[in-house]
Amino acid sequence: MTNYQIDVQLSKNKKEKPAFDQLSFGTVFTDHMFILDYTEGKGWHDARIVPYQPITLDPAAIIFHYGQTVFEGLKAYVTKEDEIVLFRPDQNMKRLNRSNSRLCMPELDEDLAIAGLKKLISIDKEWVPNVAGTSLYIRPFVIATEPYLGVAPSKKYRFMIILSPVGAYYKEGINPVKIAVEQDYVRAVAGGTGNAKTAGNYAGALKAQEAADKEGYAQVLWLDGKEKKYIEEVGSMNVFFKINGEVVTPALNGSILEGITRKSVIELLNHWNIPVVEKKISMEDIFRAYNDGLLEEAFGTGTAAVISPIGELFWQGEKLVINNGETGALAKRIYDSLTGIQTGVAEDPFGWRMKVE
Amino acid sequence: MTNYQIDVQLSKNKKEKPAFDQLSFGTVFTDHMFILDYTEGKGWHDARIVPYQPITLDPAAIIFHYGQTVFEGLKAYVTKEDEIVLFRPDQNMKRLNRSNSRLCMPELDEDLAIAGLKKLISIDKEWVPNVAGTSLYIRPFVIATEPYLGVAPSKKYRFMIILSPVGAYYKEGINPVKIAVEQDYVRAVAGGTGNAKTAGNYAGALKAQEAADKEGYAQVLWLDGKEKKYIEEVGSMNVFFKINGEVVTPALNGSILEGITRKSVIELLNHWNIPVVEKKISMEDIFRAYNDGLLEEAFGTGTAAVISPIGELFWQGEKLVINNGETGALAKRIYDSLTGIQTGVAEDPFGWRMKVE
Ligand SMILES: Cc1ncc(COP(=O)(O)O)c(C=O)c1O
Ligand SMILES: Cc1ncc(COP(=O)(O)O)c(C=O)c1O
Repeated sequence: MTNYQIDVQLSKNKKEKPAFDQLSFGTVFTDHMFILDYTEGKGWHDARIVPYQPITLDPAAIIFHYGQTVFEGLKAYVTKEDEIVLFRPDQNMKRLNRSNSRLCMPELDEDLAIAGLKKLISIDKEWVPNVAGTSLYIRPFVIATEPYLGVAPSKKYRFMIILSPVGAYYKEGINPVKIAVEQDYVRAVAGGTGNAKTAGNYAGALKAQEAADKEGYAQVLWLDGKEKKYIEEVGSMNVFFKINGEVVTPALNGSILEGITRKSVIELLNHWNIPVVEKKISMEDIFRAYNDGLLEEAFGTGTAAVISPIGELFWQGEKLVINNGETGALAKRIYDSLTGIQTGVAEDPFGWRMKVE
Repeated sequence: MTNYQIDVQLSKNKKEKPAFDQLSFGTVFTDHMFILDYTEGKGWHDARIVPYQPITLDPAAIIFHYGQTVFEGLKAYVTKEDEIVLFRPDQNMKRLNRSNSRLCMPELDEDLAIAGLKKLISIDKEWVPNVAGTSLYIRPFVIATEPYLGVAPSKKYRFMIILSPVGAYYKEGINPVKIAVEQDYVRAVAGGTGNAKTAGNYAGALKAQEAADKEGYAQVLWLDGKEKKYIEEVGSMNVFFKINGEVVTPALNGSILEGITRKSVIELLNHWNIPVVEKKISMEDIFRAYNDGLLEEAFGTGTAAVISPIGELFWQGEKLVINNGETGALAKRIYDSLTGIQTGVAEDPFGWRMKVE
């Protein structure tokens, strides 16, 4: 890897660290952040690590008006040998660039982004929590900063990485959730931005989430925007079903985000010789399998929860209780394997871990 | 109207004003801006006018990650009696609140927003350009400011209004544009956010716009996201067609923005007893009318251009040249009437003008 020039300005007022056994999600940030600026004609420049601090932008900056922005989410873990490891950061930076391209934003040097991330984590290494189930959540993002009210791609951007120690997703062991199939709102449609990790997708999803929450459901399962028949994904997770011994997941169709956990699960299942198929799946298919007693498991996959078993699916007045509302054996096996690889307690046959320092 | 408490802090360093006959769009801002903050539990508070200046936000502010933001666009004009007038600002504030509601954001007091806007303009009144065709572009917007990486509605918001003197849209008289019908990308789908004025809709549209631009087209005409058959709108304009004496425009279907110019054009046509119908219109309908020699005019409607005649439509390899590529008589009549009302040279039978001060 090239030796990149990354300036470092260390914080003089280190913050107090929270108790690592009492962390929540996304509210506490470390002492430093990584910044890289882009100016049209000059390209990306001035890679630097500075104390975590507010950003100052013109009120006319394009990010505030036309949402030209993309982001990523990944995690770092401490192993029992006290090493800090990242899970497939190359995949996140690749996806970030695919998102950049969809939003007419300049692509980043993925190696520089990873070098910056590693340096940032090594400086803030005492912030990587070491309590079981905790991790350091990493948020790389790019925002359009040019002050201009015309609807056009920005000529200036800022790439930043901020870090947040986060608590265990499951406090008392992996736990199934209830999910409502969304019939009114639509997250994305082919030709739109659903397969890019961009802000607008999430803002648009809040309303459905709010309604589901009121009915006691943790998340919504999105259907396709055209016919509202085919399964897309769940909140911030991709979705898998085990039907009669075979694992199925919606094929990438242009409106689904290509999850890195999804990809890893497919690779793991292939490695285990468990049949897994990416295809178009309708809610009717799932309901039929359920009625025939063939729907054995359902689970979501994503960076936050890794694996999130689905205990109940609510669809058109029907409550589909899956595997008696309990965590399935396959979901458990995948969860244990992935978290084992991520935290360094298991072998890493695929080379998914990347050491920091 | 209630007498609102709006604090004013005047700028000590007035900026130099640009030459009003050389203005472009959205690059120059006035000396002051209006701010109103929201905190959960407390509601909207601290209405104030302060010198135009950068905003300072935590890098974890929700606006940067999940795009929870809405905006508006309207204009103020100087009349020949040297009065400053707004065009239907009540409609913009109503739409802003509809957008707020779609994005799980708190609604504003519309009267306070208008009172703040009027006070701001009266302070910066020397910035309202008085050259023919120019105007003061007004950008109200709300951003989610809470620093939190969970996907949930923000508990803090900031409403701001910034002002920008803008040049004549048509330097040498109203002028037709060429528009390409978009076949690959989709702007919005029913159930999504297409009928809200939110940032993500515009970021997602850049890619199609870029491709059209390369082919020499000014904008794209969006089709529906489900079947890619039905006409939705153009870039930042609604669209109208005159077919065999009747005016038609796509009905509001949940994915089209409800333009205030659109609404005004419909009201004007009704007033003139010219038949106008809101309905589902396919590109095939338009092509058939064109082939039958019945497609008399086509034009876009929006705050920026007011009326933008369409001289050519490119669709599936066919170039539909409309009215010989010239501005139609109806487009011209509507343009003259609307701009006449807006700038105070014509009567205002509908009460659309609102005086500042
Ligand atoms: C919309 C959406 N789908 C799926 C995922 C899962 O992706 P990953 O496994 O890369 O975290 C995420 C989270 O990143 C997401 O935001
Ligand atoms: C997507 C979109 N459609 C239509 C319009 C036209 O709306 P209005 O006439 O209120 O300017 C605009 C501009 O505001 C727009 O952004």
